[in-house]
Amino acid sequence: MPRPTPDRLLPERYAVHVTLPTRFQDLDAMGHINNVAFAALFEDARVRFNRALGRMNRGDGLRAVVARNEVNYLAEGSYPEDVEIATAVGRIGTRSWDMVAVMHQNSRAIATCDTTIVMTHPVDGAIPADFRARLSAVMLRDA
Amino acid sequence: MPRPTPDRLLPERYAVHVTLPTRFQDLDAMGHINNVAFAALFEDARVRFNRALGRMNRGDGLRAVVARNEVNYLAEGSYPEDVEIATAVGRIGTRSWDMVAVMHQNSRAIATCDTTIVMTHPVDGAIPADFRARLSAVMLRDA
Amino acid sequence: MPRPTPDRLLPERYAVHVTLPTRFQDLDAMGHINNVAFAALFEDARVRFNRALGRMNRGDGLRAVVARNEVNYLAEGSYPEDVEIATAVGRIGTRSWDMVAVMHQNSRAIATCDTTIVMTHPVDGAIPADFRARLSAVMLRDA
Amino acid sequence: MPRPTPDRLLPERYAVHVTLPTRFQDLDAMGHINNVAFAALFEDARVRFNRALGRMNRGDGLRAVVARNEVNYLAEGSYPEDVEIATAVGRIGTRSWDMVAVMHQNSRAIATCDTTIVMTHPVDGAIPADFRARLSAVMLRDA
Repeated sequence: MPRPTPDRLLPERYAVHVTLPTRFQDLDAMGHINNVAFAALFEDARVRFNRALGRMNRGDGLRAVVARNEVNYLAEGSYPEDVEIATAVGRIGTRSWDMVAVMHQNSRAIATCDTTIVMTHPVDGAIPADFRARLSAVMLRDA
Repeated sequence: MPRPTPDRLLPERYAVHVTLPTRFQDLDAMGHINNVAFAALFEDARVRFNRALGRMNRGDGLRAVVARNEVNYLAEGSYPEDVEIATAVGRIGTRSWDMVAVMHQNSRAIATCDTTIVMTHPVDGAIPADFRARLSAVMLRDA
Repeated sequence: MPRPTPDRLLPERYAVHVTLPTRFQDLDAMGHINNVAFAALFEDARVRFNRALGRMNRGDGLRAVVARNEVNYLAEGSYPEDVEIATAVGRIGTRSWDMVAVMHQNSRAIATCDTTIVMTHPVDGAIPADFRARLSAVMLRDA
Repeated sequence: MPRPTPDRLLPERYAVHVTLPTRFQDLDAMGHINNVAFAALFEDARVRFNRALGRMNRGDGLRAVVARNEVNYLAEGSYPEDVEIATAVGRIGTRSWDMVAVMHQNSRAIATCDTTIVMTHPVDGAIPADFRARLSAVMLRDA
C-alpha cells in the first residue's frame, strides 16, 4: 500500500491547473465530499486537460480509453469550498500513457489520481509521433 | 501497469454477490457506462457488503475510511443491462484491509476494483479482533 | 401549490412498473435520498418506459425532448431499500404529451413526477399517428 | 403547459448570481447537459443562496424541506462552458415559500427552476418573523 510521496503533492510540478467548485451533490451521508465525487472532479480536470492538449489524429478510428484509475485519499474534502486540481503526464509508453493529478482544498493536498490511458488496438496502436510530442511537453516536472 | 489476472475475474472466488441495474445517468457522451459510474456501482456493492458484515465496534470513536481506490477497466459497459458485482476481502493488515471486487455484465468481466480501508488513528488503530474474524470469514477464496 | 391528489398515488392506475435499488450515491448530507436523486430515478424509469414503448419513427429527424419536469416530494426516501416506480402517459396533445409517475418505498408513496415532452419542430411537429396510438395504450387509468 | 414568460428570464430581476462550471459528468448519451444535471446545478445555486441567507432559527427542531421542484427546459446546454444561475425568492406564504431561478449559458436562457419549500410542521410551522424579513429582502424584483 504505497502512499503518494510528498513530492507528488507539489502543484508547481504539474503543467495544467484548474479551480473547480464543489457541489452539494458531492456530499455523502457523512457530510464529506464523497469518494466517487473525487473521481468525478479528477475526471473533469482530465477532460479539460485533454481538450487543451488537442485530439489525437490517427485517421484510422483508433482511440484512447481509460484502462485504470487510482485515487489516493489523503484528507476529507468539504463543501462549498473550491478544489484546485493540477494535472500532468506522468509516463509515456509505446501504446499507453499515465496522467497524474493532485487535488488541493483549503491549501492542503486531499487526494491524488493516477490514470492509465491505452490505445484501443493492442497490436499497431502506437501513440502517433505528433501526439507523443504534445504529451512530452506536459510531463510532470522534477521536484 | 499490471492488469488483473484471469483468476481475479472468477465470481466463485468472492464471498458476496449483488446484481444492480445500471441507470441512464451512468451513460456518458460516448454512450457507454462512464468510468465514474463504475466507481459508484462498486461503492454501492461495497456499502452493501459492509452493512452485511456489521459495524466495527471500537467504542472509542475510531472508524475506518477509504484510503485508496483503484478501478481497472476491461471492457465497455452498456445500459440498461444489469451488472453483477462480486466482492470479498483481499488482504487484512494490522490497521488496514483491502476489499476486492469484479463486475460482470452480459456474462463477461468488465472491471475490477481494489479498495484499501484504513483505521483513522495511525498509532493505536488496530483492527479489533472480532471484526478481524468477520473480515477473515469473507476472504477471497483460492482459485 | 396544488399537491398530488390521493388518486395520483395508486400504482394500479399506471401502465408500467419497475423496481429500482437506491444507491449510496443517492444519499445527501442529511442521510436521506437527495431531491436530485429522485429525479434521476424517475428519469431511469421513464427511459425504460420509452424503450418499451418503441421509437417514434418520423424519418425526418424530428425528435421529442423534455420541456418540463416537476417532482413533488411527499416523504423522505432511505437507503438501501428499493423504490417502485409506476409510470403512465397522463395527457396527449398535438405536439406534446405528459408522462406521469409515482414512487413508492416501504409501501408508501414518497414522490410523484410530471414530465412534459414536446416535438422539436414547433410548426409541423405533430405526433405521428402510430406513435399516438402507442401512447394511448399506456394512458393513466381511471381511479 | 404554461412556459416561463420572457420576464422570468431577466437576470437583473434576481437577487443572487453565481457562475458554475459544467462537468463532464453532466453530459448524457446525446452529448448534451442532462436534464437531471440541470436540477443538480439549480440545487447547488439554491444551497449557496440559502447559506448566504443564513439559518432559520426556530430553536424547536422545525426545519424547511423541498416539497416541489419544477424545471422548465428552454434550450440544450453544453460542456465545458460555465452556466450562470440567478436566484431569488418568488413567493412567501405562511408556512412555505418559493425560490425561483434562471440559468443562462452562452448568453441565452436555457432553463428555469421553481422550488417550493415548506416548514415540516403543518400546524404551527409558521415562518419566523426574522427569517421572513430576510426572505423579503431577496424577492424577485419587478421587470
